[in-house]
Amino acid sequence: MASVILCVKMAARLTAEFLKDWKKEVNPDLQKERDTCTFNIQELTFMLDGGPEKTKRRKELENIFFTRYADLFSFKKRSSQSKSEMYESSVAKSVKVFQMKREQNWSEEDFEMTARILNYDFALSLHHTMFIPAIERLATDEQKAQWLPLAQSYQIIGTYAQTELGHGTNLLGLETTATFDRATDEFVLNTPRLSSMKWWPGGLAKSSTHAIVLSQLLIDGNNHGMHPFMVQLRSLDDHMPMPGIKVGDIGKKIGANMVDNGYLILDKVRIPRQNMFMRNATVTKDGKFTQLSNNKANYATMVLVRVNIISWTRDMMRHAACVSVRYSAVRRQTTLKPGTPEQQVLDFQTQQLKTFPALAAAYACHLIAEDMLASYHAAYTEIMSGNNRKLAELHAQSSGLKAFLTDMSTAMVETCRRSCGGHGYLMSSGVAQNMVSTLALVTIEGENTVLYLQTARYLMKQMANAVSGTKTDGPTAYMNRDFTSYVCPIEVKQDCRNLNKLREVYTQRAHRVVMSVAQKLQLDMESSLPQEIVFNKNMVELVRAAKAHLHLTVIDIYITKVDNLRATCSTELYKVMTELCNFFVVHGMVQESGDFLEMETLGLSQMEWLRQEEMELLEVLRPNAVGLVDAFDMHDETVASTLGQYDGNAYQHLFESTQNEPMNQTEVHPAYYKHLRGLLKGTNQSKL
Amino acid sequence: MASVILCVKMAARLTAEFLKDWKKEVNPDLQKERDTCTFNIQELTFMLDGGPEKTKRRKELENIFFTRYADLFSFKKRSSQSKSEMYESSVAKSVKVFQMKREQNWSEEDFEMTARILNYDFALSLHHTMFIPAIERLATDEQKAQWLPLAQSYQIIGTYAQTELGHGTNLLGLETTATFDRATDEFVLNTPRLSSMKWWPGGLAKSSTHAIVLSQLLIDGNNHGMHPFMVQLRSLDDHMPMPGIKVGDIGKKIGANMVDNGYLILDKVRIPRQNMFMRNATVTKDGKFTQLSNNKANYATMVLVRVNIISWTRDMMRHAACVSVRYSAVRRQTTLKPGTPEQQVLDFQTQQLKTFPALAAAYACHLIAEDMLASYHAAYTEIMSGNNRKLAELHAQSSGLKAFLTDMSTAMVETCRRSCGGHGYLMSSGVAQNMVSTLALVTIEGENTVLYLQTARYLMKQMANAVSGTKTDGPTAYMNRDFTSYVCPIEVKQDCRNLNKLREVYTQRAHRVVMSVAQKLQLDMESSLPQEIVFNKNMVELVRAAKAHLHLTVIDIYITKVDNLRATCSTELYKVMTELCNFFVVHGMVQESGDFLEMETLGLSQMEWLRQEEMELLEVLRPNAVGLVDAFDMHDETVASTLGQYDGNAYQHLFESTQNEPMNQTEVHPAYYKHLRGLLKGTNQSKL
Repeated sequence: MASVILCVKMAARLTAEFLKDWKKEVNPDLQKERDTCTFNIQELTFMLDGGPEKTKRRKELENIFFTRYADLFSFKKRSSQSKSEMYESSVAKSVKVFQMKREQNWSEEDFEMTARILNYDFALSLHHTMFIPAIERLATDEQKAQWLPLAQSYQIIGTYAQTELGHGTNLLGLETTATFDRATDEFVLNTPRLSSMKWWPGGLAKSSTHAIVLSQLLIDGNNHGMHPFMVQLRSLDDHMPMPGIKVGDIGKKIGANMVDNGYLILDKVRIPRQNMFMRNATVTKDGKFTQLSNNKANYATMVLVRVNIISWTRDMMRHAACVSVRYSAVRRQTTLKPGTPEQQVLDFQTQQLKTFPALAAAYACHLIAEDMLASYHAAYTEIMSGNNRKLAELHAQSSGLKAFLTDMSTAMVETCRRSCGGHGYLMSSGVAQNMVSTLALVTIEGENTVLYLQTARYLMKQMANAVSGTKTDGPTAYMNRDFTSYVCPIEVKQDCRNLNKLREVYTQRAHRVVMSVAQKLQLDMESSLPQEIVFNKNMVELVRAAKAHLHLTVIDIYITKVDNLRATCSTELYKVMTELCNFFVVHGMVQESGDFLEMETLGLSQMEWLRQEEMELLEVLRPNAVGLVDAFDMHDETVASTLGQYDGNAYQHLFESTQNEPMNQTEVHPAYYKHLRGLLKGTNQSKL
Repeated sequence: MASVILCVKMAARLTAEFLKDWKKEVNPDLQKERDTCTFNIQELTFMLDGGPEKTKRRKELENIFFTRYADLFSFKKRSSQSKSEMYESSVAKSVKVFQMKREQNWSEEDFEMTARILNYDFALSLHHTMFIPAIERLATDEQKAQWLPLAQSYQIIGTYAQTELGHGTNLLGLETTATFDRATDEFVLNTPRLSSMKWWPGGLAKSSTHAIVLSQLLIDGNNHGMHPFMVQLRSLDDHMPMPGIKVGDIGKKIGANMVDNGYLILDKVRIPRQNMFMRNATVTKDGKFTQLSNNKANYATMVLVRVNIISWTRDMMRHAACVSVRYSAVRRQTTLKPGTPEQQVLDFQTQQLKTFPALAAAYACHLIAEDMLASYHAAYTEIMSGNNRKLAELHAQSSGLKAFLTDMSTAMVETCRRSCGGHGYLMSSGVAQNMVSTLALVTIEGENTVLYLQTARYLMKQMANAVSGTKTDGPTAYMNRDFTSYVCPIEVKQDCRNLNKLREVYTQRAHRVVMSVAQKLQLDMESSLPQEIVFNKNMVELVRAAKAHLHLTVIDIYITKVDNLRATCSTELYKVMTELCNFFVVHGMVQESGDFLEMETLGLSQMEWLRQEEMELLEVLRPNAVGLVDAFDMHDETVASTLGQYDGNAYQHLFESTQNEPMNQTEVHPAYYKHLRGLLKGTNQSKL
C-alpha cells in the first residue's frame, strides 16, 4: 500500500513538472504565419458572418455559452463520455438553449447561430428542424392553433417518424397503417410486422412526447396513400410510454451518439380523427376522403432540409480545414535537407494537397449555401402564391447538391483527418469527431445515389425538352447550345488562370456527358427493352451525368460569387479569394481528368498545364492558409480539438486531454485483478 | 407507479409478439441465391483455407471460442460497451487465448488463425506481434535466454515503444535519451520534454509490465544513434508503475478502443547496462561503443509487419464484402417497374458497383498476401545467410503495397458500409465497426504518403539503373523495355476479356508514369535548384508514380495467381475466379481513366469499351455474388453483424441487438428527471 501512495505521488510530480513548462503564448510557428498573411483577416470574418454586427452578436452568444455556462457547454469532457452520458449532457444543453430562446425571445437567426456555435450538439434538435416546420406546413389553421403553442413553449417535444426498419427511400413501400374507425371517429395506427416499425427518427427513443407519424391511410379497405398523423408517445405526467406504444433506442452509432435515434412499435393505437393533419387532404366524420392540394409545399420543405444540409457541409469543411491547417503549421516532422531542423509539414507539397482542397471547399460551400438559401426563399414566395414554375429545378438542384457536397465533404474531412497522422485517429483531435458525425449526412434525408438519380431524371427531361426545341433556362440553359461547335477555350497555359474559360470547359463537359447518356437511353429504348431494364442498365452512367452537371453548378456558383466580391471587398482579399477559387476549379479538373478527356473537352497538353497550375497554386496559397482558417473565427470551444486550437499548442492539449480519460483515474485497471494477474503469476485465477 | 408497471408489461408483450414471428430458417431470397450459384462453394473454401484439414482445424477453434466459451467470446454485447469495458473484456479474451496457447501448445498457425477468428480483438496482441519478435531479432543469445522464457510464459507482458508525441515517421527526430553512467554501469533513460514522451504504443497504458524503448544512446556527450532498451514499467508484485515511470491511456479513438494505447514519461529511469539489446551494437563496462551489424534483419522485420497488414486488408475486405452482399440480397427497396414487388437491391447496377469491387478485392488481397508472405520467407532465408540482394526490392514493395492496399481497402469498406444505407451507420451493422477499426491502418507502421514516397525513391533509383544500362529485374523489369515502341494491345472490345492484354496496358502506364516523373526530376535538377526543393516540387508526382507501379503489381499478382488455378481447380471455379479478376482489372482502369488516357496507353474507344465491359461483368458476377462471400465461411460470431449473418434475417438481428443497449434498460432515462421534466412542465428546475 505504501508503494501505491508513493507511486501516485511520483506520478503527480511528473505531471506537474511537465505542466510547469506549459505555454500560454501562441506557438511561434503559428504566430509567424499570422504575421505574414497578405490580407486583413477581420475583413474576411465580417464578410463570412454577414457584417460586423453579426460578428458581435456571435461573440455575445459564444460568451454566454463558453464563459457564463462553461461547465455545461465546454467540450473538454466530451470525448470520454459513454453514449448515455453524451445523451444526458446533450439534453441538458438543449434544455438550456430552449429556455434561453424562450426567455430572451431569440430570433431564428440567433437560434441557428447557436446551433453552429455548439456544433449541432443538440439531442432535441429535430423538435425545431422537423417537428415544428412539419406542423406549419401540414396542419390546418385550426390544428396549428392547437399544436404550435404547445410545441413552441416546449410543453410537448416532438419528432417526425417516417422511415421504417424495412423502408427508407421508397415512401410508397411504408407499411404503417392508419385505419379509420367510423364507429368511434378514430384512426387506429398499427405497425403490423417487424419491418414496419418506425426506425431512425432522432429524439424518438427517450426524448419525444409526440411524433408526426407517416402512415398509409385506410378507409373501408381502400388505401388513400401516405398521410401524417399526430401521435402522443409518452405521458405528459410521468414520461412513460402510452398504452400500445413501444419506443426504444436503436443502439450505438459511428457518431452522433448524443441523439436518441429510436424505434417505434404501434400496437393498434387509437387517436382522434382530428389528429390527422388535414391541410392537404381531409377525412370527414363519415369517412369521406378528399385530396385538397397537390402538396407542393411539402416539396418546398424537403428542399429546405437539403439546403440546410448544404450549410452543414460548410461548417464541417471549415472545421476540418481549421484543424488540418493549424496542426500542419505547428507539426514539424522530417527534413528534406539533412542537418537542418525538422520542417513544418505544411511546407510539404503532398500535405498541402491534403489540406488546401478542404480550405477552398469550405469557402465554396459557404457561397453555395448562401446562394441556395436565397433561391429557396425566392421560390418559396412564388410557391406560396401558387406559382410552381421553379420548383422542379430547385428540387433537382438541392437534391443533387446535397449528394454532391456531402460526398465531397466527407471525403475531404477524412483526408484532413489523415493529414493529422496518427493523432487524427484520437477523438480528442476534433477532426475525428467531425468525420464520424458527418458520415451520417450521406444517407440522411435521401441516400445520395438515390438523389443523384433524381437529379439525373430531371436532366434527362430537360435534355429532351432542349432537343425538341423547348428552351431550358437556369442551371440547364447550356442544353440549348450546339455542342457540335464546341472548341476548348484553353489555348495557352495562362488560360488556366482564367475562371471564365475554365467554367466553359466544365459546361462543355456537363453538356457532353448528359447528352451522351441521353443518347444511350434513347438507343436502348429503341431496342425494345422494357423501360425498367433500360433504366437499370444505364444507372451508373446516369449518376455520372448528374455528377458532371452538379460539379458545373458548384464551380459556377463559386466563380460567380467570387467575381461579385470585386465590387465589395479590398483588392488584397479579392485576390486571395480568386486564387482559392481558381485552385478549387483546377483541382476538380485534375481529379476528374478522365471525364474531361473522355468527353474531349480537354486535350493532353491542357491537362498537363492544369496539373502544373495546380501545383503552382499550392505555393500561391501557402502563405495565407492560416489566415484563411483564422478568418472563420471559430471559438476554441466550437473547434473542440486538441490539434486545432488558436494557440497551436497541440502537444499540451493532447496530454491535457488524457486527464479526463476514465482509464486514467486509477494507476491499476480492474482488469489486472480480474484477469491479468492470474496470467502473469501463473495462477490462472481471478482473485479480486 | 401502477402506470409504470402496466406500461412495462405492455412493452414486454409487444416485444414478445414480434419475437413469436421470429424466423429460424434462412431468408428465402438468400437461399435462392445459394441454390443458383454456379460453382462448388466448399471447393473454394478449402482453397482459401489451404486445404480441408485447415478448414477442419478452423472449425474446431471456432467451436472452442463460440460454443465452449461463448459467454466470453460472443460479439452480442460488444457494441454497447464503454471504452473501459471493451478493454477489460478484450484483456479477458487475450488471457484466455494465451492460456490455451500455453497449455495446448498451439502452433503459430493456430494462433494466427485464432486472431482472425476473433477479429484481432486482443488488448495484448503487441506482446506477440512486436515484443517477442523484437527480442528475437535485437537480443544477443544471452539476452534471449534471459527474456524470451519470461515473455513466452507470460510472466512479463511487453510492448514496443518507439513513436513519441512529437515524432512519428522520422526516427532520427526521436528525443528520448539513454545516457551511459560509467560509475554505476547503468543507462539513465529520460524523456526531457513534452514532445518526447512515448505516445501510441498499444498495451502501454495499463497492460504491459515491460517495454522495449527506442532511445538516442549518449556516451560522454556523443550521440551513437537509436538503440533499443528493455525497461520495466510496472511492478511484478502489484502492477504499480515503477519509480520514475508515468504511464497512462491516450484517450478514446475512432476505433480499436479495446487496446490501451498509452503514453510513457521516463524521469531519469536507471536500468542495468545489460538491458540495452546488443545484437547489433555493444557498449562495454568502460563505455566503449561498437556497431556490429548493419541491421538488415531489422528491415526484414519491418517488411514482415507490413506483410501482416496486407493480410489484415484481406480479412477486412472479406468482412465488408460479406455484409454488403448478403444484406443487398435480403434488402428489398423500390421497384423499377410500377406495380411489382420491391426489388432486391443487389439487382440495381449502382448497388453492384458498390459491392462487387470489394468482393473482387477480397480475393485480390488474399492472393497478394499469400504471395508477399512467400516472398518474405524466401528473402528472409537469404538475408539470414548474409545475402541482402532482395531486401531493397522487398522493402519497397511491401511498404508500397501496405499503403496502396490499405488506401484501397479503407475506401472500399466505407463504400460497402454506405451500400447498407442508414443501417450501415449503426455499430451493430458490423461493417461500421470494421470501417472504424481499419482506418487505423493508413497511419500505423508508416504513414501511407511517406511509404509511397519510399517506394517512389526506389523506383527512381531503379529507373536510373535501367536508363544507364543496368538491367532491373522482378517487379521493375519493365523498366528495361523500350517504351517508345509501345502500342496499345486492346484492338477490339473482346480484348477487354484478355487478362494478358490488360496487364500489358497497366505495364505501359506504370512505365510511362515512372519515366515521366524521372524525367521531370532530372530536368529540375539540371536547372540548379537545390535537391530538397526539387524533391518537394515533385512530391505529388512521385506519389502518382508509386501508385501506378503498385497498381500494376497488384493486378499482376492477381492475374498470375488466378491463372495458376487453371491447373488446380474445377473448370466452374476457375471460370468464376477469372471473371472476378477480370472485373477488378477493368474496374481499376475505369477508376483511373485519366491516368491511362494521359499516359496515352489507352485511347477513347478503348476506354468506352472498358466502361461497357465493366457493366457487363457486373451482370456476369451477379448470380455468384452470394456464393463468393459464403465461401469465406466466416463464422457468424466473426462477422459479428446484424446485417450480414448467414441466415440473412437482418431485421430480426437489428431489433434484437437493441435489447442490450444501456439506454433501453429503463423506460424513462434519468435525463428526463434531471433536465427534460423542468422544460416540459415549465418549472425549469431539476427535481431528482
